[in-house]
Amino acid sequence: MPQQPPLGVAVIGTGRMGADHVRRIDEVIHGARVAAVVDVDAERAKAVAGRVEGCAAYTEPAAAMASSDVDALLIASPGPAHEAALLQAFAHDLPVLCEKPLTPDPAAALRVLEAEQRLGHRRVQVGFMRRYDAGFMRLKSVLDAGEFGRPLMLHCQHRNASTPPGFTSQMMINDSVVHEIDTTRWLLDQEITAVTVLRPAPSTAAPAHLSDPQLVLFETSGGAVVDVEIFVNCGFGYQVRCEAVCESGSARTGEEAGLVTHSAGRWGGTIPQDFVPRFAEAYDRQVQRWVDATRRGTVEGPSSWDGYAAAAVCEAGVTAQATGRRTTTELVERPALYA
Amino acid sequence: MPQQPPLGVAVIGTGRMGADHVRRIDEVIHGARVAAVVDVDAERAKAVAGRVEGCAAYTEPAAAMASSDVDALLIASPGPAHEAALLQAFAHDLPVLCEKPLTPDPAAALRVLEAEQRLGHRRVQVGFMRRYDAGFMRLKSVLDAGEFGRPLMLHCQHRNASTPPGFTSQMMINDSVVHEIDTTRWLLDQEITAVTVLRPAPSTAAPAHLSDPQLVLFETSGGAVVDVEIFVNCGFGYQVRCEAVCESGSARTGEEAGLVTHSAGRWGGTIPQDFVPRFAEAYDRQVQRWVDATRRGTVEGPSSWDGYAAAAVCEAGVTAQATGRRTTTELVERPALYA
Amino acid sequence: MPQQPPLGVAVIGTGRMGADHVRRIDEVIHGARVAAVVDVDAERAKAVAGRVEGCAAYTEPAAAMASSDVDALLIASPGPAHEAALLQAFAHDLPVLCEKPLTPDPAAALRVLEAEQRLGHRRVQVGFMRRYDAGFMRLKSVLDAGEFGRPLMLHCQHRNASTPPGFTSQMMINDSVVHEIDTTRWLLDQEITAVTVLRPAPSTAAPAHLSDPQLVLFETSGGAVVDVEIFVNCGFGYQVRCEAVCESGSARTGEEAGLVTHSAGRWGGTIPQDFVPRFAEAYDRQVQRWVDATRRGTVEGPSSWDGYAAAAVCEAGVTAQATGRRTTTELVERPALYA
Amino acid sequence: MPQQPPLGVAVIGTGRMGADHVRRIDEVIHGARVAAVVDVDAERAKAVAGRVEGCAAYTEPAAAMASSDVDALLIASPGPAHEAALLQAFAHDLPVLCEKPLTPDPAAALRVLEAEQRLGHRRVQVGFMRRYDAGFMRLKSVLDAGEFGRPLMLHCQHRNASTPPGFTSQMMINDSVVHEIDTTRWLLDQEITAVTVLRPAPSTAAPAHLSDPQLVLFETSGGAVVDVEIFVNCGFGYQVRCEAVCESGSARTGEEAGLVTHSAGRWGGTIPQDFVPRFAEAYDRQVQRWVDATRRGTVEGPSSWDGYAAAAVCEAGVTAQATGRRTTTELVERPALYA
Repeated sequence: MPQQPPLGVAVIGTGRMGADHVRRIDEVIHGARVAAVVDVDAERAKAVAGRVEGCAAYTEPAAAMASSDVDALLIASPGPAHEAALLQAFAHDLPVLCEKPLTPDPAAALRVLEAEQRLGHRRVQVGFMRRYDAGFMRLKSVLDAGEFGRPLMLHCQHRNASTPPGFTSQMMINDSVVHEIDTTRWLLDQEITAVTVLRPAPSTAAPAHLSDPQLVLFETSGGAVVDVEIFVNCGFGYQVRCEAVCESGSARTGEEAGLVTHSAGRWGGTIPQDFVPRFAEAYDRQVQRWVDATRRGTVEGPSSWDGYAAAAVCEAGVTAQATGRRTTTELVERPALYA
Repeated sequence: MPQQPPLGVAVIGTGRMGADHVRRIDEVIHGARVAAVVDVDAERAKAVAGRVEGCAAYTEPAAAMASSDVDALLIASPGPAHEAALLQAFAHDLPVLCEKPLTPDPAAALRVLEAEQRLGHRRVQVGFMRRYDAGFMRLKSVLDAGEFGRPLMLHCQHRNASTPPGFTSQMMINDSVVHEIDTTRWLLDQEITAVTVLRPAPSTAAPAHLSDPQLVLFETSGGAVVDVEIFVNCGFGYQVRCEAVCESGSARTGEEAGLVTHSAGRWGGTIPQDFVPRFAEAYDRQVQRWVDATRRGTVEGPSSWDGYAAAAVCEAGVTAQATGRRTTTELVERPALYA
Repeated sequence: MPQQPPLGVAVIGTGRMGADHVRRIDEVIHGARVAAVVDVDAERAKAVAGRVEGCAAYTEPAAAMASSDVDALLIASPGPAHEAALLQAFAHDLPVLCEKPLTPDPAAALRVLEAEQRLGHRRVQVGFMRRYDAGFMRLKSVLDAGEFGRPLMLHCQHRNASTPPGFTSQMMINDSVVHEIDTTRWLLDQEITAVTVLRPAPSTAAPAHLSDPQLVLFETSGGAVVDVEIFVNCGFGYQVRCEAVCESGSARTGEEAGLVTHSAGRWGGTIPQDFVPRFAEAYDRQVQRWVDATRRGTVEGPSSWDGYAAAAVCEAGVTAQATGRRTTTELVERPALYA
Repeated sequence: MPQQPPLGVAVIGTGRMGADHVRRIDEVIHGARVAAVVDVDAERAKAVAGRVEGCAAYTEPAAAMASSDVDALLIASPGPAHEAALLQAFAHDLPVLCEKPLTPDPAAALRVLEAEQRLGHRRVQVGFMRRYDAGFMRLKSVLDAGEFGRPLMLHCQHRNASTPPGFTSQMMINDSVVHEIDTTRWLLDQEITAVTVLRPAPSTAAPAHLSDPQLVLFETSGGAVVDVEIFVNCGFGYQVRCEAVCESGSARTGEEAGLVTHSAGRWGGTIPQDFVPRFAEAYDRQVQRWVDATRRGTVEGPSSWDGYAAAAVCEAGVTAQATGRRTTTELVERPALYA
């Protein structure tokens, strides 16, 4: 059996996420190599490329896509740059792993959907990496098995120790709760039909302009109700938990585990300080599975449709947050390509 | 020092709760004895009295109150009978531990409040026994110490294995969520100002007429937001949990504890099947503390005001449940007696 | 039904344990009162008696036993005084709850056994209060039910934050491990036939003369093996845990429970600092059940035989500790009275 | 930077472990490929090689070592074949990851040690993969940091659901407890100086000839004491736990985690049925780190010395098991190469 060469991946965007994906493909993942990196900052692109064997540096995605070394794209540039890169990728008919969001707004996402339909086959996987977390995968399999009957409610908590400068209330929906939006759609296999946001008197530990924490409520097409605590300046660490309450049982993931210590009058353990230790394996698994599927010539994982639906619910969520009112979401009909 | 005789208690109502209080005073509690039992069913009253040393049986509360053996009352009759018994107790100036609800509706509760004010001193403790649960007491003390800053949210779950025949959606508020209403008011030391109820597609395990589970949301005078899962046919047991999310930390009570076993491919433990094992110690502690305070000539614990406020929030909750709308609560001004 | 008067208890010894039993009977337990206290220190006896209604003070146990107010004895004096008090109690044919140890050595315990046999009926319950801890009771019931087959091993940990001045290595066996000795005998319903003690290089946190911690091993008449970590200067709190490993499952009690908090990068809870919060309910339950049984005219709970067997195993344990050798225990034949 | 080719690995032995390593290198690990497989069963070797791109099949290790495609060896053949393969590897100066045991007995291990010393540099990493388990790694780092003072005791449990036909009491030491032998040496950075084995009356669930479970005790050069429950027919699953008790705190790894469910009156989760899910990540991390170090031209991880010491303690353990006596271990002086 002849030896299949590794998948040549161009990583577009070399910020925190992009650089981490470069490291992942270069050191962790099997069957792929970083063939090219792209960044508008030419120096930065060169610096990152220089650390990787056989890696070219570009400032334009199109240039990388034109390289015969490039078999697939991993888009990790800022959200507003995604649409253009995706449309170019379709022009080269290249497989793409696109970091979330697919696009920052549902209108752009719809244009991507339409372009992918014109192409005639799926090419995009969206980076909702929680679907690759071992705990969420087990929760999904319990729900799919129907062991406890139909899921009726999800209780979710999503906490960050603190926010970087410039973090806004809208980003609490678009950057943070977007994960619970995808989690809800994926776990329940239902669409989110309405969003309501309750805002307690904010924590004094949060920046003055930020209404933090908030309680976000989803209603779904199958009649489930979901509550999400989003608290991005909780101070004590990074926590993501989800309990699914079903007709005859409940299942919960994200509880603390790991080393249990006893000392100085206390028992317990440590809380990770950001998403890196919490979801490192999920990121690895996501990229490995994308590489594996791509080498097999298939597309799996969250689709452009999932990216579009998340963008639409985010838009409703931001409205609900601003108005204090229950806001319904209206999706276009699901195209056959994503059935 | 001369020996103080035990407190002679008349237990009014000898149904499940009343009979259990008779047993508690007769076998568990220190410093009290059951001097009389009252039940409209004379045979039942006699049967219960016959199991207790020196206990008289009556069919009318007033008759028991007139007895020189009776120093205090424990009202465990059905809610609609409470108002009359409380007003009679005031006439005899007797201390009362009144099982919740104080009265079934806020108008009646207001009449009780007014009568107690005319009496000029507090005589009533309402049976919100969760305030005497070790876990909730520890949670309260953590919040009062302000170690983690101001509480911003409470996440509550309240689950029963199943409901008896005749259990209605309104009872989910009046009989079940009423505990979270008091817990919220007590833990936060704030009033509940608005209630919203979301109703997922009901479990097929619930009776056909019952919209079970529901998600009940409170907003409070201090700007906190509280979510309560009420699920009265969850099938697997009785569970009451509460997590308080504060500005720099969270604290959770009600997690499973007890014997951990490993067998047949599973680890874990058992879930109590009803409130008796879960809150047995809280009931004991509640009655013991009431007896102790009464013998010292004081009144402690939840007051008639707490009973009134709970009734008012329940009324709003039932409206919110029926209409699907956010419903505000309007309390009368808090009388000085309950300051 | 005529009202049965409360059991009049004389508490002998008013040190820490005795004073706590006085408080327990005076304020917590149902159906008993402290009729007398006895202490060689007359001032101390009077001071304690003065806080209790209708309580007399004595300096001699015999004087208290002669009082018509005294129906039963709770012996909480130092161990060396137990034998004399017990023999006097037999002379008055009074029921006794005797704090552990029954006597400090097996020879004295044998004399008590013989005297009780001459009396012709059991009068003594020994204060092995772990048998009344809810967790250990559940463990016992799981083992007795045989759900997981025969118990093969017990893994025990027994930790104290620190020791008072004068605490010796022998006391690690006689005062601390004696609880695991009784726990083992009770849980397994077997006698301990051999003891081995391993002594790691001691903790620098322990007093210089104390070989702390130690690993104590029991072999039992039914072929079980038990390991006990005894660590009396662990620094972080009081912990008692026990895991029973059976043929098809294991069951563990004593794991941390209670309020779980998240703050400052850590999750977890607090560890009690001494045995009082850990076993308060067990002490209450022990005395309540002794009072209940005594009023019914029966004797239950750990017997003089259990006190004798514990003393014999302690003696072997101290020898094993001193010699580093496996040391067998030899019990007299079990008298019919204790069958 | 020129692209470094993947490390060409010859996997020697294609049984369960070997085949799993082939899959791991072929599908999971970065930077390596399976260049050759070796098995005395030529058909089997060919079948395995046929599933991997560019992989040759051999029946003799020496033939694979002679191939220019082979840069390193992973020895997964039966233990008795290890010595010969290792000596050949030294002749080719090839890096080796050798599955445990290094050799079945200390005499053979000594010959390997001597040959490696003649070679003049370390070439061997032994497959004690627990050192690569995230939980054990965290435990090690806590101990190394000395946060809780010096470790005094380890409490270990090692349980298998059941044993395959032919599993003997000696294999309980050589195949199972060997992991705790290495864990003890690694966590404490001390040698094991004596072994004692206690054998409870065996479980009726174990095969008739097998004394299962056993309690194995280690004493170490630094004065620590270690107890190991080895129970290879516990029935309920695969469990590996370890608690390190230090001077001012304890730390425990291996507690149950993962999805927590509530249903049918029970809370809890599942127990893995064998070592694969429990240690899958440790195996992956072990091989990845070996590949990474090898490509950097270094040797890390457990050495031939660790393999020799484990073999010597196993020998003592088997004697202790057979005789019921405390058995001391005598190691040769540690050669400078392994300092």
